[in-house]
Amino acid sequence: MSYVNAADRAPVTVVGLGLMGQALAGALLDAGHPTTVWNRTAGKADRLVERGAVLAPSVGDAVAAGPLVIVCVTDYAVVRELFEPLGGVLDGKVVVNLTTGTSAQARETAEWVTRSGGAGYLDGAVMAVPADIATDAAVLLYSGPKEHFAEHEATLRALGGAGTTYLDTDHGLSALYDLSLLGIMWGILNGFLQGAALLGTAQVKATTFAPLANTMINVVTEYVSAYAPQIDAGEYPAGDATMTVHQEAMAHLVEESETLGVNAELPRFLKVLVDRAVTAGHAGSGYAALIEQFRAGTSG
Amino acid sequence: MSYVNAADRAPVTVVGLGLMGQALAGALLDAGHPTTVWNRTAGKADRLVERGAVLAPSVGDAVAAGPLVIVCVTDYAVVRELFEPLGGVLDGKVVVNLTTGTSAQARETAEWVTRSGGAGYLDGAVMAVPADIATDAAVLLYSGPKEHFAEHEATLRALGGAGTTYLDTDHGLSALYDLSLLGIMWGILNGFLQGAALLGTAQVKATTFAPLANTMINVVTEYVSAYAPQIDAGEYPAGDATMTVHQEAMAHLVEESETLGVNAELPRFLKVLVDRAVTAGHAGSGYAALIEQFRAGTSG
Ligand SMILES: NC(=O)c1ccc[n+]([C@@H]2O[C@H](COP(=O)([O-])OP(=O)(O)OC[C@H]3O[C@@H](n4cnc5c(N)ncnc54)[C@H](OP(=O)(O)O)[C@@H]3O)[C@@H](O)[C@H]2O)c1
Ligand SMILES: NC(=O)c1ccc[n+]([C@@H]2O[C@H](COP(=O)([O-])OP(=O)(O)OC[C@H]3O[C@@H](n4cnc5c(N)ncnc54)[C@H](OP(=O)(O)O)[C@@H]3O)[C@@H](O)[C@H]2O)c1
Repeated sequence: MSYVNAADRAPVTVVGLGLMGQALAGALLDAGHPTTVWNRTAGKADRLVERGAVLAPSVGDAVAAGPLVIVCVTDYAVVRELFEPLGGVLDGKVVVNLTTGTSAQARETAEWVTRSGGAGYLDGAVMAVPADIATDAAVLLYSGPKEHFAEHEATLRALGGAGTTYLDTDHGLSALYDLSLLGIMWGILNGFLQGAALLGTAQVKATTFAPLANTMINVVTEYVSAYAPQIDAGEYPAGDATMTVHQEAMAHLVEESETLGVNAELPRFLKVLVDRAVTAGHAGSGYAALIEQFRAGTSG
Repeated sequence: MSYVNAADRAPVTVVGLGLMGQALAGALLDAGHPTTVWNRTAGKADRLVERGAVLAPSVGDAVAAGPLVIVCVTDYAVVRELFEPLGGVLDGKVVVNLTTGTSAQARETAEWVTRSGGAGYLDGAVMAVPADIATDAAVLLYSGPKEHFAEHEATLRALGGAGTTYLDTDHGLSALYDLSLLGIMWGILNGFLQGAALLGTAQVKATTFAPLANTMINVVTEYVSAYAPQIDAGEYPAGDATMTVHQEAMAHLVEESETLGVNAELPRFLKVLVDRAVTAGHAGSGYAALIEQFRAGTSG
C-alpha cells in the first residue's frame, strides 16, 4: 500500500457490498478516503473494516457520515427501498447510483431523490469487472447535473482513473450507454462461446482459441469505426464485403454448427436479421445497413 | 511503390477477382510477384492488368502459369465448378483456397483436388477486409500439409505479414476457426448496432458511441482470456459477476429496447440462453458456464 494522507481525502459512503460494492469501497480505502460502508449482510464488510472502513449500523447512519454516497446494489427497487425512507437525511448529500438499470429507472430515481430539493443525484454505470476497479481498464460513466460530477470528480476518479467519463445532464444517458455497451460485451462473449463449442469438437482448447479470438476482436474495432459514420449518414456502401457475402458465410456457420451437433440458435438468429436486410433491398450493401433491422421495433 | 525485384519473387495465380480477390492480387503485385489472374467477369481485371498482372484467357491457362494457385470465389461449389474439369493441369501445383466454407467442404475439396496424387491443397481463411490485406491487421489462417505451407510461406506472407498463421494438418481447421471468428465479429457488430439504435433514440450519434464501444471491446478481450481456462477446466467461479447479475442486466436491456421501440429480439435471445443456464443450476456461476448451452445441440 502506498502512503496516503487521509486528511486530504473526502469522506465517502458506500452502500451495497456485493462483488462490485466491495471493489468500490476497497478502491476508496486504497486511495485514502475515510470510507463508511453498509450492507444488508454485515459480514461482507469484515475485510473492508480490517482495511480501515467504518461499518455503519444502518443505511441512515452510513448516509449521514459524509457528503457523497455511492450505492451499488442488485437493482433500482432495492435503492428505493433503502433510500426513500431516509427523507431529510439525504439533504446536502450527493447520491451516486452505480446500480444497473434502464434509463427510465435512472430518471425516476433522480426525481424522487431530489424531490425535496436538498439532495443531489448522479446516475452512473460501471463498465468493468470488480478486479479492474481503480485501474485504467475501468470505464465508469456518469450523468446528471455537471456540478455534482465536478464537485466529486476527484473522489470518483479513485474508482476508474482515465475511464471516468461524464456524459450528459440527462440522468438516463449513463444507463442507456451501459446497456448498449453490455450488449456488445455479451455479443463478444457469446461469439467466443459459440466458437469454443465448435472448435471443442475438434479438440481445440478454448485457451488455444482465445489469443486468435482476441486478435479478431481488436481488428473489429476498426470495422466499428468505419461503420459508425455510415450509420449516421444512412448510407452503407460495401467497400469490404456485401450483405450477400455475410449471408452466405452465416449459412456456413449454421451448417457447421448443425453438422457438429453444436447449438445453432445463435447462428440462425444472426442469419434471420441479414435475410431480412437482403429482402429489404440491401443485398449489395455493407453490414452497417443492418442498423435498419435493429431500429425496427419488434412486433409482439 | 517500393522498388522490388520481380526476379526474386515466385509467380502466383489468383482465380476470382471479387472484392477480396482483387485485394489479394494487388498485394502480390505490390510485393513484386509475377501475377496471373482470371475472373469470370474479365473487366474486374482491368486495374490489375494496368498494375502489371497478366490476364489469362481461361482458368486452365491461369493455373498453368505457375506453381501456386490462390482461389477466392463465392463458395466451394464455384471452386469445384472451375477446378475439377482441369484434371492433370493441376499436377505439380499447390492450390490455396481462401473461399469461405465449412470444415466438411474444406476436407472434401482437399480430397478431390489431391485425388490423382499430383496436386497439393491448402485450405485457408481470410480474417480481414480487403483494405487490410498486406497489413499487420490481416489474419490469414492455413491448414493442410505443412510442407505446402512452408514451400509457399514467403509468398503467402505478402497477403498478411505477422497475421499469417499455419494451424494444422487437418484441412478442416481453418474453416472451423474462420466461422468461429466470424461469429465473434458478427456478435460485436450486432451489439454495436443494437446500442447505436438505442442511443439513436436519444440523438446520440453512432460516431459518438463508437470510441466508447471500442474501449469496451478492448476491455472484453481480458474477459475472454479469463474465461478460456474456466471453459477448459469445466469450472466457472463467479469472480466478477454471477449469472443472476447478467440475467437481471439482460432483462433491463430487453425492457429498454421495448420501451424505446427498438428491436428487442437480440436482447431477448441473449436472455433465453442465460435463463436456461440459471435453470440448469448456474445462478451463482460466472458467465463462462454458458458454454454448456452453446455445446448443447438444438432440437429441430
Ligand atoms: N459484478 C460486476 O462485474 C458488475 C459490473 C458492472 C456493474 N455491476 C452492477 O452492480 C450491481 C451490483 O452487482 P454485484 O455484482 O455487486 O451483485 P451482488 O454480488 O449480487 O451484490 C448485490 C448487492 O445488493 C444487495 N441487496 C440485494 N437485495 C437487497 C435488499 N433487498 N436490501 C438490501 N440490499 C440488497 C446485496 O446485499 P447482500 O450482500 O445482503 O445480499 C449486495 O450488497 C448490479 O446492478 C450489477 O449489474 C456489476
Ligand atoms: N470481402 C471480404 O471482406 C471477405 C473477407 C473474408 C473472406 N471473404 C470471402 O472471400 C470470398 C469472396 O468474397 P468477395 O467479397 O470477394 O465476394 P464477391 O465480391 O462477391 O466476389 C465473388 C467472386 O466469385 C466469383 N464467382 C461467383 N460465382 C462464380 C461462378 N459461377 N463462376 C466463376 N466465378 C464465380 C465472382 O466472379 P464475377 O466477378 O464474375 O461475379 C467473383 O470473382 C467469399 O467466400 C467470402 O466469404 C471475403
